[in-house]
Amino acid sequence: MTRPFSALDSNIDQALLNSLRPEARNAPTSGIIDIVNYAREKEGLVPLWVGEGSLPTPDFICEAAHQSLKAGETFYTWQRGLPELRQAIADYHQALYGRTFDSEHFIVTGSGMQAIQIAVRLVAGAGDEIVIPTPAWPNMAAATGLTGARFVEVPQYFSHDGWKLSIDDLLAACTDKTKAIFLNSPCNPTGWTASLDDLQQVLDFARARGLWIIADEIYTRFFYEERQGGNGELGPTAPSFYEICKEDDRILFVNSFSKNWAMTGWRIGWISAPTALGDVLENLVQYSTSGVAAFMQRAAIAALKEGEPFVAEQVERARAGRKTVLDALAKVPGAKFAPPSGAFYLFWGLEKHEDGGALAREIVDQANVGLAPGFAFGQSGTPFMRLCFATNPENLALAATRLQGWMAQR
Amino acid sequence: MTRPFSALDSNIDQALLNSLRPEARNAPTSGIIDIVNYAREKEGLVPLWVGEGSLPTPDFICEAAHQSLKAGETFYTWQRGLPELRQAIADYHQALYGRTFDSEHFIVTGSGMQAIQIAVRLVAGAGDEIVIPTPAWPNMAAATGLTGARFVEVPQYFSHDGWKLSIDDLLAACTDKTKAIFLNSPCNPTGWTASLDDLQQVLDFARARGLWIIADEIYTRFFYEERQGGNGELGPTAPSFYEICKEDDRILFVNSFSKNWAMTGWRIGWISAPTALGDVLENLVQYSTSGVAAFMQRAAIAALKEGEPFVAEQVERARAGRKTVLDALAKVPGAKFAPPSGAFYLFWGLEKHEDGGALAREIVDQANVGLAPGFAFGQSGTPFMRLCFATNPENLALAATRLQGWMAQR
Repeated sequence: MTRPFSALDSNIDQALLNSLRPEARNAPTSGIIDIVNYAREKEGLVPLWVGEGSLPTPDFICEAAHQSLKAGETFYTWQRGLPELRQAIADYHQALYGRTFDSEHFIVTGSGMQAIQIAVRLVAGAGDEIVIPTPAWPNMAAATGLTGARFVEVPQYFSHDGWKLSIDDLLAACTDKTKAIFLNSPCNPTGWTASLDDLQQVLDFARARGLWIIADEIYTRFFYEERQGGNGELGPTAPSFYEICKEDDRILFVNSFSKNWAMTGWRIGWISAPTALGDVLENLVQYSTSGVAAFMQRAAIAALKEGEPFVAEQVERARAGRKTVLDALAKVPGAKFAPPSGAFYLFWGLEKHEDGGALAREIVDQANVGLAPGFAFGQSGTPFMRLCFATNPENLALAATRLQGWMAQR
Repeated sequence: MTRPFSALDSNIDQALLNSLRPEARNAPTSGIIDIVNYAREKEGLVPLWVGEGSLPTPDFICEAAHQSLKAGETFYTWQRGLPELRQAIADYHQALYGRTFDSEHFIVTGSGMQAIQIAVRLVAGAGDEIVIPTPAWPNMAAATGLTGARFVEVPQYFSHDGWKLSIDDLLAACTDKTKAIFLNSPCNPTGWTASLDDLQQVLDFARARGLWIIADEIYTRFFYEERQGGNGELGPTAPSFYEICKEDDRILFVNSFSKNWAMTGWRIGWISAPTALGDVLENLVQYSTSGVAAFMQRAAIAALKEGEPFVAEQVERARAGRKTVLDALAKVPGAKFAPPSGAFYLFWGLEKHEDGGALAREIVDQANVGLAPGFAFGQSGTPFMRLCFATNPENLALAATRLQGWMAQR
């Protein structure tokens, strides 16, 4: 018998790490996780750093999982997802966009993150490029890097009437090596939201160049501007590629049950793609996690079929939270922010302050509020911090008061 | 508004497929799924094609998930897994192998498949090679191919006293491009099981060459030979690298809750690695599925802490199933098989018959028994078929009778 498994020698550690594939070894640690780990145990802290609210998953969704477990649905199941769930997702899209959808477009995945991972692996590998407007949710860039492909940042820029993205800049960043444009609208973390004209311009370009679009419209229900048309019976959504695309366009939509239905911890999502890709997508699911638990899928069906009142409540909660936060920061001298068009984050900083990471630590230490440092979202995010306002009103009001008090003393 | 999403034109389909990354487009469809889809609806069929039994997950495990859901554990959680689960996995290993384990070695994954995917991506990419004895579970080779690495098959060979692998052949297949040896023992589908000497030889070679070993010992509890020593309080296991390795050896153990605890549909597993890899593994989890639902992990804790009587029952069931199948085939003239040392499959064929895929279809059509075609497990498996005997005795007896009847008529 050898010595017990325990702490290691640091030279041996380094040799072990050196023997790994560089893309894996160099995958960045999420800058969000870093600060969460820094302050996880801090008493009384108001955590607004991650993209989730304070409500657990509604009972009727949990109960659907429970009933499925009781019925013994614990065996291997369809790799593409239960036919009933795929149909429910198609019906949901029909209600959102007022056009018909074939369930064959939809493949169930083990999280929105897995949908992204699969989308990236479908289209890009070593030597390829994916163009990504930043600030952006860091996992997209990291998933790209892990394939050996390069992600090319196109900076959004801050203005006092909202974050902006130049579509001309975006398209100009595409080279012969570009395989896909990743477009997250409404954007996490900035709230920037593409207009239908923006989307049309990107789609025209992608069609002309034969590029793929990876469309992350996860926050489409969380949209705070007035708009006419383009929507189905479920009410307002942000402008969507679904309003202008054809069935054979090279668009991979990635989506998740996490945000609308308060299912962040479940890890269930979907990908939507031209039906010709069905077999390839099934294979990629098979060789990633081999499908999603049937009892989880039953819960997802319940969410889609009975969840509209809850989604409406979530959206109203975010809308109210947005107002609380905007009102509070309006009273903070030097706060640099603009009303976000969509999603449920405020990406803000302080005038004449270039290090959002240092600010976020200071705010944890001095105001007991948890924010995500902007550098986590790409270089152009460095001076900023992300605050999630999709949480309960009491916590948000408390955080607002604390931030005001902190600035007054600063 | 454009035309509705519906069936596509085949030229457009082909163009879409051509625009994908070749490694993704060319990922093989599982030959097991193919025959399952062929005969899924066939009435009265006895399905022995996939690696699961007929028992659903035990109630006490499902109930732990239910209680966690009721307690509202539906939020984002630890990327490496709940500390309590990682400790429970460490304790389980201690009980299996009679040595102490630090919980820092264990990272929870969204299935054994994801553990394999992460292990492969940790060590190999385009231009690299992984050496794999075959017949083998096809997903390992496919996961390797998806990274752009090449898998090198080293054929096991059939003999009437069991499947054999020449360790010399295995080591001789390693070149300068080899990054890892994948060793699945007991082997799915052949039941071949490495001796401790075999493992020592592989480990010595890997140490000398700086290679990684990806060790799939998922079936270690399903072992049918007598052996002395090396085991902890939980009783006999197959020979394991854990009996001879040091904590800093380059071994990635992949494992799953699927088989021991009848949790195939859950998609939960773990990877065990030198602790120096913890941060890198956490990142790969983050960028794959971002963790496993907390309520699933509570179920996994219950499985580990209270599941030993059930595991013992599962092992006994497989042992009895093995006997049923071996006795039945002994009465089938021309059947080509040998008693498997471990796992819960019989990988068998007919003398003078080289096409196991055709046989499997014939058996579906004429005997109403579902077997997996051998070609799915690599070229050396082509003449054979895989039969899972970890199912209920009545089904197995029925399948045995049908196979005897089919051969008598053939």
